[in-house]
Amino acid sequence: MDKTYRSIFKWGDKREEKLEKGVVELVREEFQYTDQDFQKRILYGDELVNLAQKPTISSEIQQQLRDISGKENVRDDDFSRASHAFGKFYGELLDLRKGEIAHPPDLVITPRNEDEIVKILDICQQENIAVTPVGALSSVTRGVETPRGGISLDLTKYLNKIIKINESDTSVQVEPGVFGPVLEKALNDKGYTCGHFPQSFEYSTVGGWVAARGAGQASTGYGKIDDLVLALRIVTPVGIIETKDFPATAEAWDLNKIFIGSEGTLGVITSVTLKIRKYRPENSAFASFVFRDFQSATQSMRKIMQAGFGFPHLFRLSDPVETATAFKIKGFDNSFSDKFLKMRGYRPGERCLMFVSIEGDKEYTHLMKKKIKKIARKSGAFYSGRKPVKEWLEQRYESAYLRDPLMDIGVMTDTVETSVSWDNLLNLWSEVRNYLESRRNTHVMAHISHVYENGANLYFTFLSPMKQGGEKADYLEYHHGLIDAIHNNGGSLSHHHGIGRALAPWMEGEMGKTAMGLFQAVKDHLDPKGIMNPGNMLGLR
Amino acid sequence: MDKTYRSIFKWGDKREEKLEKGVVELVREEFQYTDQDFQKRILYGDELVNLAQKPTISSEIQQQLRDISGKENVRDDDFSRASHAFGKFYGELLDLRKGEIAHPPDLVITPRNEDEIVKILDICQQENIAVTPVGALSSVTRGVETPRGGISLDLTKYLNKIIKINESDTSVQVEPGVFGPVLEKALNDKGYTCGHFPQSFEYSTVGGWVAARGAGQASTGYGKIDDLVLALRIVTPVGIIETKDFPATAEAWDLNKIFIGSEGTLGVITSVTLKIRKYRPENSAFASFVFRDFQSATQSMRKIMQAGFGFPHLFRLSDPVETATAFKIKGFDNSFSDKFLKMRGYRPGERCLMFVSIEGDKEYTHLMKKKIKKIARKSGAFYSGRKPVKEWLEQRYESAYLRDPLMDIGVMTDTVETSVSWDNLLNLWSEVRNYLESRRNTHVMAHISHVYENGANLYFTFLSPMKQGGEKADYLEYHHGLIDAIHNNGGSLSHHHGIGRALAPWMEGEMGKTAMGLFQAVKDHLDPKGIMNPGNMLGLR
Repeated sequence: MDKTYRSIFKWGDKREEKLEKGVVELVREEFQYTDQDFQKRILYGDELVNLAQKPTISSEIQQQLRDISGKENVRDDDFSRASHAFGKFYGELLDLRKGEIAHPPDLVITPRNEDEIVKILDICQQENIAVTPVGALSSVTRGVETPRGGISLDLTKYLNKIIKINESDTSVQVEPGVFGPVLEKALNDKGYTCGHFPQSFEYSTVGGWVAARGAGQASTGYGKIDDLVLALRIVTPVGIIETKDFPATAEAWDLNKIFIGSEGTLGVITSVTLKIRKYRPENSAFASFVFRDFQSATQSMRKIMQAGFGFPHLFRLSDPVETATAFKIKGFDNSFSDKFLKMRGYRPGERCLMFVSIEGDKEYTHLMKKKIKKIARKSGAFYSGRKPVKEWLEQRYESAYLRDPLMDIGVMTDTVETSVSWDNLLNLWSEVRNYLESRRNTHVMAHISHVYENGANLYFTFLSPMKQGGEKADYLEYHHGLIDAIHNNGGSLSHHHGIGRALAPWMEGEMGKTAMGLFQAVKDHLDPKGIMNPGNMLGLR
Repeated sequence: MDKTYRSIFKWGDKREEKLEKGVVELVREEFQYTDQDFQKRILYGDELVNLAQKPTISSEIQQQLRDISGKENVRDDDFSRASHAFGKFYGELLDLRKGEIAHPPDLVITPRNEDEIVKILDICQQENIAVTPVGALSSVTRGVETPRGGISLDLTKYLNKIIKINESDTSVQVEPGVFGPVLEKALNDKGYTCGHFPQSFEYSTVGGWVAARGAGQASTGYGKIDDLVLALRIVTPVGIIETKDFPATAEAWDLNKIFIGSEGTLGVITSVTLKIRKYRPENSAFASFVFRDFQSATQSMRKIMQAGFGFPHLFRLSDPVETATAFKIKGFDNSFSDKFLKMRGYRPGERCLMFVSIEGDKEYTHLMKKKIKKIARKSGAFYSGRKPVKEWLEQRYESAYLRDPLMDIGVMTDTVETSVSWDNLLNLWSEVRNYLESRRNTHVMAHISHVYENGANLYFTFLSPMKQGGEKADYLEYHHGLIDAIHNNGGSLSHHHGIGRALAPWMEGEMGKTAMGLFQAVKDHLDPKGIMNPGNMLGLR
């Protein structure tokens, strides 16, 4: 691919080249799209990258940086800079499609080791140059932008090694720039799994998971990244902090937890030690259910989580619209099974689809499946077999690749997630739904995909034709109202995507002034010049 | 009891009045104690409390404080002050026995609500008066001492309410001063349990559990307090911070985790929301095993934790000496069972006793017991039934009440705990044992009682005749060497007792200067005048 804007905002994955037939049908029906509409090429972004602004870092400093990391690892060409200006926030994709890059980094540096990072931070502190550590740039919250220019410090080229797999402790130590599939393959080969499969798995790194405080699709069983990290090493502007891989301690408060979710604002993560688990896919149990309605399904989820027999790994529930959409896309409507379900009282527009997988010891996964089936059936669920889950798992990362081809034909689509306690879940779900549906011509789906004893996350997906001409303002206004709706109805600002610049404006309202002061004090101490990922990140100065 | 020093250092529990027969035998054999020795009354501390130093806070300020909290809640009498000068660190007990209280608080205040705490902190900041928030004063790490005098802020009198049991979210919100048994009773009555049973359970509070980052005897299944806290409210000198009870978030980094383990140095906890679980004792499964040696037993523990069928709740393994001691105390030696075990190759001095309990769903606990039995037997363990575990549970808190009657007869006894990764566990165990045994005439026992996929904690108990005349110096020297042995061999300074002033001197060596700077920066921000539990707490200024 040429060095176009398009080559930046696309994942580069072949699965994003073509819209699945079912999605085409959905768009046709929901938005009255004609054949002609599907030929659209909206904001296609196939111009060659060309930045108006040249790097502002003096040639002397540039030379110092090249002396540290090598000439080839300090890049100032337009394409390198443009491709490190944004993550995958919807508004960022629009900017790229329009070739509008207001604040690219001045330089992209790929350091070869931690020593070089220390030296680079020293120079940047001295010269007051911003540094944004990045992995695979898949942030959907504007976490990797460079509003002050400076250096985008790309850790994927060299700091991408698996340092040690410790089979006795069941842990793995890695460098931050290792990609999900590389780590998982290395672990699987030795009979282990990391158990962390975010939607971005194929195009994200361990450092990013930690920085954004991510969660994987099987987090209900394996835990969020918060639960997986045993130890960290971080280069901050005032020195290196390294924690130890104790299974637990009471050595004052937990420093790991300050860096998990710090989004590059406190320093550069150079090593991560994660828990690993035995990889035994042959033991996994799968189950899918159709519930009569969202209420009974969420009730059932809660009961399962509180039943005292452990947690499933994948645990996912689609709300009625998402369920109907999935059925439509998969060609299930009007099939024999569909008719059967309807006859039994599982009505389209009310029924909900639940997916479960359980991993681990074989007898355990079997017992748990049996117990889950019992609880689900008590809530009136129909057991629909293991096949739907296995099919879903096979295409588990694909929905991430839908966004760009939809944008190509003028359809805005985005997702937002929030966490909420059980007793507020249905209220939040319906209030946020109401808000999203208040937009004309909008298809709104929701699911629950990370579940806890005390609540769950809610994931909203919306599709709506773009307002042509004012795409970004239109999106931002809608998005703003969406976050307001979540915040005002007691949902968290983020369950696993971090805060970034996109959600920062809500942070003080969410946390209060005193808490914000504490965040800021930590930042000011570790980064006294404010060079680390600056510019309203997390709502900080 | 009169207002003696003795009435302060005793728990006040009837179980500490008399040494069990088995313990008497042990002391007789190990230390060649004669009947006469058992009549000793060493440092009995039965003088009436009399403090040389009178409160130094001006009567004007005292009046202001009385105006806030009421006359009866601002106490300046010697006994109140003496009884809030120390926790339960061995050296503190010696000081009390000698009537040596160098730094009592000037006043003991029992605030009636959060508003009063805010006002008290305001005055204390203005006047630079130290404030030490305390619960039941059971700290074994010198966490509640008042080296600068000031105010001991006792939260047990009024801030001891259960605010809300939320059955939908399975959580409970409480005030910090509620005692373990009160909380557990209220939860049991509604069919729930907190699952947090530290050794100090009967004489400790929720606020203390959080402040010291504690763990209960069933923490392997229920989690440490770190895992149980959903939300906190804290009055700091610069304002109130309140977190929300989301099941999980990615709202920057986790502020709860800054206050869990902060040991009163950052503010006063005024509300804690904890996870709760269903209370179904009728479902519990129990198992005990005898292993041929500590190596095969720890191996088996590790395999069980990594097997992928969940974790037992109580999971406890005594090393050979502790096992032999327990057998002796319980009169097991030379019984029929003992002979049988010996015949089968389970030799005294090598064999190890393991206790397991599993709670939750009935079928689950049964399956897990079966699986654990299978793994244990593969490692050569002998299944010794459920009875020993049930007996142990019935006296689960008693060993805490042994220390004082042993001190009465001149026997020093103390415990220290540490966490360690699996691959360093046996090394740490044997190195620390070697150190402890290097003292003449010392009985050293160890057990594992909090177990993780990635490692475990080690708990050392020692008994040795006091060096009469130089009791405290003798103890402190031995203790110093013990912490050195743990630290130099890769154990954590603390797994669940916190750091306090006792372990503070090792903190910089453990954490490094940069990390210590971060702890200090958080402290300096929230407590700019340094009034909260000051004096080298956690190694901070």
